[in-house]
Amino acid sequence: MSRIAYVNGRYVPHRMAGVHIEDRGYQFADGVYEVIAVRGGQLMDLDPHFDRLNRSLDALKIAQPMSRGALAVVVHQTVRRNLVRDGIVYMQITRGVSPRSHPFPLASDPAVVVTARTIAPPSAEIIKNGARVVTMPDIRWGRCDIKSIALLPNILAKQHAVESGGYEAWLVDEGGYVTEGSASNAWIVNSEGALVTRDLSTAILGGITRSAVLKACAAHGIAVLQGRFTPKEAKNGREAMITSTTSFVAPVVDIDGSKVGNGRPGPVFRRLRALYMVHLNPL
Amino acid sequence: MSRIAYVNGRYVPHRMAGVHIEDRGYQFADGVYEVIAVRGGQLMDLDPHFDRLNRSLDALKIAQPMSRGALAVVVHQTVRRNLVRDGIVYMQITRGVSPRSHPFPLASDPAVVVTARTIAPPSAEIIKNGARVVTMPDIRWGRCDIKSIALLPNILAKQHAVESGGYEAWLVDEGGYVTEGSASNAWIVNSEGALVTRDLSTAILGGITRSAVLKACAAHGIAVLQGRFTPKEAKNGREAMITSTTSFVAPVVDIDGSKVGNGRPGPVFRRLRALYMVHLNPL
Repeated sequence: MSRIAYVNGRYVPHRMAGVHIEDRGYQFADGVYEVIAVRGGQLMDLDPHFDRLNRSLDALKIAQPMSRGALAVVVHQTVRRNLVRDGIVYMQITRGVSPRSHPFPLASDPAVVVTARTIAPPSAEIIKNGARVVTMPDIRWGRCDIKSIALLPNILAKQHAVESGGYEAWLVDEGGYVTEGSASNAWIVNSEGALVTRDLSTAILGGITRSAVLKACAAHGIAVLQGRFTPKEAKNGREAMITSTTSFVAPVVDIDGSKVGNGRPGPVFRRLRALYMVHLNPL
Repeated sequence: MSRIAYVNGRYVPHRMAGVHIEDRGYQFADGVYEVIAVRGGQLMDLDPHFDRLNRSLDALKIAQPMSRGALAVVVHQTVRRNLVRDGIVYMQITRGVSPRSHPFPLASDPAVVVTARTIAPPSAEIIKNGARVVTMPDIRWGRCDIKSIALLPNILAKQHAVESGGYEAWLVDEGGYVTEGSASNAWIVNSEGALVTRDLSTAILGGITRSAVLKACAAHGIAVLQGRFTPKEAKNGREAMITSTTSFVAPVVDIDGSKVGNGRPGPVFRRLRALYMVHLNPL
């Protein structure tokens, strides 16, 4: 079966799915996106993703291209037409096409692209043995809370991680604190046993998986400190992990070549992962 | 006559000029660009623009899609086919099309888009009466020396300027110093008569017009201090101006509602503009 993409009102073969060269997403990174997990053909956390999408659009003053109900239909249709049972939906909304000029155009229709594909869940090897991360300076802009497509610093960070033999890069702000990963949120269990993840601000993206894990923790009486930690605290801690739509909850066992704890995925990771898997598969 | 765009090896009608939705420029802002002035059908400062393009590509480890000579042919052809005598050429190079994933693809051909259009030179009204600028925090990323298409902060700044009744936004770093405009370099003549523009670093883009004006100043014995200045120094200065490929040298007479000098374009502006116009039209 060939893949189908939704592009500006039409379902088209993926290989032919295009946008105009003056779509402001292509010339200015003037757009936002979401990635939603699909499990057993069902969309996970659709409402929180739509809520965040709307917050991103509002922050950039991009009009909502259609109602939430209509967008949900497009997303479901795209999943169905691509026969995705376990994978992801990608949706991107830009300010649309207009002759290139920095200010917002007086009139442009937002452009909408939705794709879906089957992907394997996070590698069993990483779940079993843990991931390596590398730290590097966070040189991103000042509004990382907006899920924009201006991802150039993120891909450079991820590439650096890959070239260093790592799975993810943890970004460190000018104060010396970890903000988040290039495409995930960062968590540690520090040397005193406290579970810590960065507090929400313009410095990080409020991850939907982060939020789901926090809710599960609250429901099960697991204390989480939303605050700051340094790479040193992470390396000297008992455990580390990341959360994201595609990685779910994944253990981190090595930071910059330093073992975390005993170098094996730990009990807090296993508990959070189990809670998140129940969240994904509640029945 | 309908416009023609060059897209990945073909000259196509502008309205039909498209790129794939998985061009990394569209999903990750993973690309760079240049804007080159056309005067009397001639390309201005082509070599410095190509030099900077190559520096940007190298910084992102994007392969050069073709030789400089071949790219020059495409640029000239695009100007010719669009019958542009006075206007601009826009060229954009991205890492190309690949299934969406943050790390650099192992193999992708860079995508090349070139467009050209006639534009009016900077408004006579601004040259005569001067422009207003507004200052705002510089929240861009840490590699503003790369001319990337991740321009979201720049368009937000320009939009803020327009909504405030200004022509340009001057961005102010965390130290309280002006870095540059959203799409131009910033210059002042301070209260002691010194001509100042920000020194090159990762905090600003090295403008080709900035560089041409600096060279002209050197050739004519006009001292320029490449260093830092604050919005307050600018407001208390004698003159202010901006340089860019599309604005050439343009006078700034109002910053955040404060008159600069006597509120009229000044003698240093007139001298630099005259020198730059000679640079553009040497015969």
